[in-house]
Amino acid sequence: MRIALAQQDYHIGNFEENGRKIIEAVHKAKANGVDLIVFPELAVCGYPPRDFLEFNDFIRLCNEVVDSIAKETQGIAVVVGSPAINTKPEGKDLFNAAYFLLDGKIERVVHKALLPTYDVFDEYRYFEPGKEFNVIEYQGKKIALTVCEDLWNVGNENPLYMACPMDVLTHQQPDFIVNISASPFDYRHAEDRIRVLKANTNLYKVPIFYVNHVGAQTELIFDGGSLVLDANGRVVEELPYFEEAYREYELDDLIASAQTSQPDNVQPKNKIGLMHNALVLGIKDYFRKLGFKQAILGLSGGIDSALVLVLAVEALGPENVWPIMLPSRFSSDHSINDSIALCQNIGVKVDKISIEEPFEAFLGVLGEHFKGLPFNLAEENMQARSRAVILMAMSNKFGHILLNTSNKSEAAVGYGTLYGDMCGGISVIGDVYKTEVFQMCEYINRNGEIIPRNIITKPPSAELRPDQKDSDSLPEYDILDQVLYQYIEHRKVPKEIVAMGFDEALVKRILRLVNINEYKRYQTPPILRVSPKAFGVGRRMPIVGKYLG
Amino acid sequence: MRIALAQQDYHIGNFEENGRKIIEAVHKAKANGVDLIVFPELAVCGYPPRDFLEFNDFIRLCNEVVDSIAKETQGIAVVVGSPAINTKPEGKDLFNAAYFLLDGKIERVVHKALLPTYDVFDEYRYFEPGKEFNVIEYQGKKIALTVCEDLWNVGNENPLYMACPMDVLTHQQPDFIVNISASPFDYRHAEDRIRVLKANTNLYKVPIFYVNHVGAQTELIFDGGSLVLDANGRVVEELPYFEEAYREYELDDLIASAQTSQPDNVQPKNKIGLMHNALVLGIKDYFRKLGFKQAILGLSGGIDSALVLVLAVEALGPENVWPIMLPSRFSSDHSINDSIALCQNIGVKVDKISIEEPFEAFLGVLGEHFKGLPFNLAEENMQARSRAVILMAMSNKFGHILLNTSNKSEAAVGYGTLYGDMCGGISVIGDVYKTEVFQMCEYINRNGEIIPRNIITKPPSAELRPDQKDSDSLPEYDILDQVLYQYIEHRKVPKEIVAMGFDEALVKRILRLVNINEYKRYQTPPILRVSPKAFGVGRRMPIVGKYLG
Repeated sequence: MRIALAQQDYHIGNFEENGRKIIEAVHKAKANGVDLIVFPELAVCGYPPRDFLEFNDFIRLCNEVVDSIAKETQGIAVVVGSPAINTKPEGKDLFNAAYFLLDGKIERVVHKALLPTYDVFDEYRYFEPGKEFNVIEYQGKKIALTVCEDLWNVGNENPLYMACPMDVLTHQQPDFIVNISASPFDYRHAEDRIRVLKANTNLYKVPIFYVNHVGAQTELIFDGGSLVLDANGRVVEELPYFEEAYREYELDDLIASAQTSQPDNVQPKNKIGLMHNALVLGIKDYFRKLGFKQAILGLSGGIDSALVLVLAVEALGPENVWPIMLPSRFSSDHSINDSIALCQNIGVKVDKISIEEPFEAFLGVLGEHFKGLPFNLAEENMQARSRAVILMAMSNKFGHILLNTSNKSEAAVGYGTLYGDMCGGISVIGDVYKTEVFQMCEYINRNGEIIPRNIITKPPSAELRPDQKDSDSLPEYDILDQVLYQYIEHRKVPKEIVAMGFDEALVKRILRLVNINEYKRYQTPPILRVSPKAFGVGRRMPIVGKYLG
Repeated sequence: MRIALAQQDYHIGNFEENGRKIIEAVHKAKANGVDLIVFPELAVCGYPPRDFLEFNDFIRLCNEVVDSIAKETQGIAVVVGSPAINTKPEGKDLFNAAYFLLDGKIERVVHKALLPTYDVFDEYRYFEPGKEFNVIEYQGKKIALTVCEDLWNVGNENPLYMACPMDVLTHQQPDFIVNISASPFDYRHAEDRIRVLKANTNLYKVPIFYVNHVGAQTELIFDGGSLVLDANGRVVEELPYFEEAYREYELDDLIASAQTSQPDNVQPKNKIGLMHNALVLGIKDYFRKLGFKQAILGLSGGIDSALVLVLAVEALGPENVWPIMLPSRFSSDHSINDSIALCQNIGVKVDKISIEEPFEAFLGVLGEHFKGLPFNLAEENMQARSRAVILMAMSNKFGHILLNTSNKSEAAVGYGTLYGDMCGGISVIGDVYKTEVFQMCEYINRNGEIIPRNIITKPPSAELRPDQKDSDSLPEYDILDQVLYQYIEHRKVPKEIVAMGFDEALVKRILRLVNINEYKRYQTPPILRVSPKAFGVGRRMPIVGKYLG
């Protein structure tokens, strides 16, 4: 049996584009004598469709695309993900389904049983879990068809679910597993995925064909990295990351592979390199899927905006990225010079617009009310907000999307100005800690200096008052980031973090800053997610909460 | 048996305050000879605790409070909601539980079976559903103890859940039902609640004691309105709305009530009046729970900011609300005069800060780039953003929270400036359609003019260019709001809305505006929820989606 995997980039609710892409791959597979072609989870509508699933008309359009794909299945079986209507009165109205299409018909519909409802996932909001599990017989073979999370409840000391579909299916002696997925990237995910699939082959002793989405949907970045494992758990092939791919396999070759003892055929991975590539794809797809081409951003001379500029140029091309320097009375000469040097290195045009006049004007109209009061956060924020007004005016006038340049450390402790530097259509590095920002700049410079060294080495400063340094208000980033990581990624509390060797007062201060700044993060742009716990849709915290606040 | 209901306002994660409040009511009940006192769902930690539930330390603190309440239960039974740890390895780590405390001990823990996971609810994100149902025997009576949604799967043609706990419990012949709830307000909810509880008494023929939260947690407003029904479904008492309450009942009186045929003892309700009271409580609790007292807002002379000002004054007092008029070259005289008249009517001090100088300064620094290009949205937004910079500077300098004044119709179609008039700590009327804004102003004026008539009757205008009217860009609000209501509240699609008699091109234009403006709504403040479908946490839409976009 010849099996094809189609790792594709869909656009949520763009039924025309998604349907065309799927049918083109079916035609190609047919021409190559493929017997079975597999597409990802919810391929028809894109993942995650969120509350569009509550619109009957949206489901009707999904069904229409499934029917149009079914028409193309003379002589070829197609597995494709799409929502399916729950025809029973009880329970949620939909299933998250894998359709098995053959000879012009919907031959079988398999319902996902394990519905991720944690972090960025809300599947139980929409779907009823499947409860019946049966292999599909096709060309004399038995296929265990599963959807994403259905394979993830194995070998775990604290299983998240009561059910395990493969424990049922294995009694029916399947010849291989097909798993269709929409599993978003984080820097740990590639390893997790291989580990989980190997745990399945260890238990069930059959090959696995695993097909994942690729492409970004607002904040979620799907990395692809689809996998084929033989019955011994050897990775026969790992598909490319962050790009579409199409591959064909002979089932017999996989059976033969299990007799050999070759090593895994996996790509070497580098955390920062993966994050870098994910962010570039995240920017690219955000612009493409919204129908925009051009980005604008404020270039401060600091490392964050420098990194965002370089990532944006990689994603959109130097001709489509417009950095603007917005100096004030507190900006240093090196900020301007470093920015110009960076722009020369990457071949982008840079402009300069001073914020002095608007800042002066605000000080003027507020003079009566602020008379006699010291210069403080209010005046600092006025500068950041004056920059935002200018950047948004340019965005409105010329149709650019403003890129946000805040990093995760700042977003965590609220070191940023709401409606100022926290503006933008998308936050590019809002899930990248400051220490990782430095690492990513080094990664970008690995084959020669692109980001001028001085931008990387100078002490971070917001330059909103004379001689300001980030370290005036915040602990050093290498300490701050470790504490934040334990709290945000691992939900450790003060006592546990202090036990790791951090100062108690410092830990309490940092955690308090995180919690009292929920109100700011609530209003920030969507953040490209590259870690296992990003701010945004996957981390839901009360604003009026008192805990650790 | 003497039974007390405590309808209280908790603060999420404020264990000291919540625990103290609960124990004080237990002491009072004991002194009055009460046998059983009932507190709402998740009373110990407040509702919704969201991802705080993922912190082991947060759960530890919940358990400590439960233990400290248990210590006070010599001679009295207490029912109180708190998370409970799932001691089995499989499934989610927690249950949403009702604790039955007696004689110093945790006597029983009942697990919620039906976990709302739709709209603003995410319970399956945290909780494993309860699967065993047993009555609790106490003083010779059998109590069917249930948690909120557990009673909501009755008499429904399309039940959302597979299970129905009362169908099991009824076989054990309970004497009465206790239901502890955290059921947030919307203008339809009071009726739904009474209807559902009556459906239960119709089926199970026993009295119900239903205790709900009261108080606001950021966007969610709990209205109280706790209920006691006799076995015939008569509402014996409906507790007050939007305030704390404590009541005691004799079970024998309820049994006697079922022999009579008196009418329901329910309060008359008025949709706009309920919404008004909900918003006042929403503002009050947002400020109190964040530890703030004072509000600032921009007063345009239009109806939206006038309404928000009046609501804020009701919530916080005239001495704590500071309206600022921020005129530009396009502001009309009547905007200033009407605003001053309003402020005189309600006794607040008003200030005026012109945005002309900052606006001029922005035009100046952008002149080179904007040369030869027509005045358009960019310049309009610059004015709205200049206002925001001034209001936020005042907020930063003096510690006021800025109130957002956008209405639901504007938020729906994106008729507002991101980082401009869409700023604020909380959106007061972002779930109130423009037509309802008019109705609420009339409601406020029901006993005499508070909001000057001219503010209500003049044609709405943003005053960002000469002679601008909302109706230049938008359909008339009475048409717009009907179409929005069908799409947002009822998930109707163009074909269905057109079939109701609306123009097809207009409907498509409106729905497209809603969908392409998700990016704006993503970054707006939390919106006080008063309708069954508010923008924000209860409505989750893709930003890069293409559907109807």
